[in-house]
Amino acid sequence: MNPAALGARHHEIRHLRALLRDANERRTEGRIVLEGPRLVTDALRRGVALEVVYFDIDAKDVILDVAREAMARGIVARECRPGVLSQAGTTRAPQPLVAIAPAPPIGRMEMLAVAGLGVGPVLVAADVGDPGNLGTLVRSAEAAGAAAVVCCGETVDVRNPKVVRASAGALFGIPIVEAVDAVEVLDALATLGRPSWGAVAHGGDEYTSVDLTRPGALVVGNEAHGLAAEVAARLERTVTVPMAGRGESLNVAVAASVMLFEAARQRSRL
Amino acid sequence: MNPAALGARHHEIRHLRALLRDANERRTEGRIVLEGPRLVTDALRRGVALEVVYFDIDAKDVILDVAREAMARGIVARECRPGVLSQAGTTRAPQPLVAIAPAPPIGRMEMLAVAGLGVGPVLVAADVGDPGNLGTLVRSAEAAGAAAVVCCGETVDVRNPKVVRASAGALFGIPIVEAVDAVEVLDALATLGRPSWGAVAHGGDEYTSVDLTRPGALVVGNEAHGLAAEVAARLERTVTVPMAGRGESLNVAVAASVMLFEAARQRSRL
Repeated sequence: MNPAALGARHHEIRHLRALLRDANERRTEGRIVLEGPRLVTDALRRGVALEVVYFDIDAKDVILDVAREAMARGIVARECRPGVLSQAGTTRAPQPLVAIAPAPPIGRMEMLAVAGLGVGPVLVAADVGDPGNLGTLVRSAEAAGAAAVVCCGETVDVRNPKVVRASAGALFGIPIVEAVDAVEVLDALATLGRPSWGAVAHGGDEYTSVDLTRPGALVVGNEAHGLAAEVAARLERTVTVPMAGRGESLNVAVAASVMLFEAARQRSRL
Repeated sequence: MNPAALGARHHEIRHLRALLRDANERRTEGRIVLEGPRLVTDALRRGVALEVVYFDIDAKDVILDVAREAMARGIVARECRPGVLSQAGTTRAPQPLVAIAPAPPIGRMEMLAVAGLGVGPVLVAADVGDPGNLGTLVRSAEAAGAAAVVCCGETVDVRNPKVVRASAGALFGIPIVEAVDAVEVLDALATLGRPSWGAVAHGGDEYTSVDLTRPGALVVGNEAHGLAAEVAARLERTVTVPMAGRGESLNVAVAASVMLFEAARQRSRL
């Protein structure tokens, strides 16, 4: 074993652990952690300037290949003692390779006014609590050609490692905005000529009958409680995916994805 | 405190813990566990004959209301000492109320031949590894009017508590089939007049250009490795959701949901 391999108490591993567990640390430093070879490979493919890659000294060859690819791009790769990374990590399955990356540029609302936004809807996540759901929303938003993702209200930290993982790299591929107050977000979007459409489980207009090619913003709420009353009051309309069976609702990321891809389908018909 | 409240070593709590953690136990007994008041409420609403409800003696009134509703339907509700349920449970947020339910009738392939299936596609999950993804697939399948869900290959146990949770009750609302070999499943479906369409991230026919109103089966594969080669060899065609941006793929549950709801949209146009 390389005697220089990092142990659990090495300051870099402590730092890694802090970034994984402490939202303030991530925010202050402007860094996020990518856990696992797939996420790191995807970031390399996207050209993300990783700061450092850590790998388990006992990792399999396919893992070491990812570390080598990073090194070939001039990225520092550091060996860690067996088990150090899996202990530091937040994933159920231990990951033998992780990377620290600069957080994607996460803007304020003003960014939407100056950014050359795409033609798809802006996705507004108001009080989305589950990190897997938020990450999946970002992943689908990029793939469906949404213009941006706005995180507001009680929405989970977009730099959370579980969000990063579920986004599968899409955090680096679509403008992300953070804002405090959902109502202010909807007002700002209206000023930009984007009325808000709220995704609701029941009683909204059928999503296939709405003209989703118009500039607009799709607003999704909390998994348990839906859209807050003050948000609902600012909507141009509500939109629903009609459901067969006796289910109460769809998963929030699924509902938004179905609507965003319907918007893409409608645009492709123009 | 009620001195009769169950402690962590009570045989019923041990049994509950076994059902939550041991796939063989769930399979042998034909029982599953519903964790949390939302899931239990949903099952009551669907008329599921819960066997027993356990609640934390210190739970809030809204939780106790669920236990009372169960009791009003003749279901046994048992008090547990503070923290006993959260220690036994598998959820990140501790759940003050759980229930044991009979597993939904999980059939073999023969069931599909005799069951009066709905008009939507059969969803085939071949090697879906993440329980949250499988549960979300079942939830979407019910809501999109899919005819059934077939779990085969290395797909995670459909009775897994995380599957149950992500399905949000839909396990009780759509025929579920378990089979070992995915190729045999596809052959059996073909015999039933249902050709298989494989969901692939790239290179398939655009999902909106395929006639999804025909009887068929939508096949999704593993999150990391996609469809196995022997499965791919049995497909009538592959189908793709076109993606903007630089992402490699969609979340498997999102991709299948987008396709299943497109099938529903096409059927509604007939």
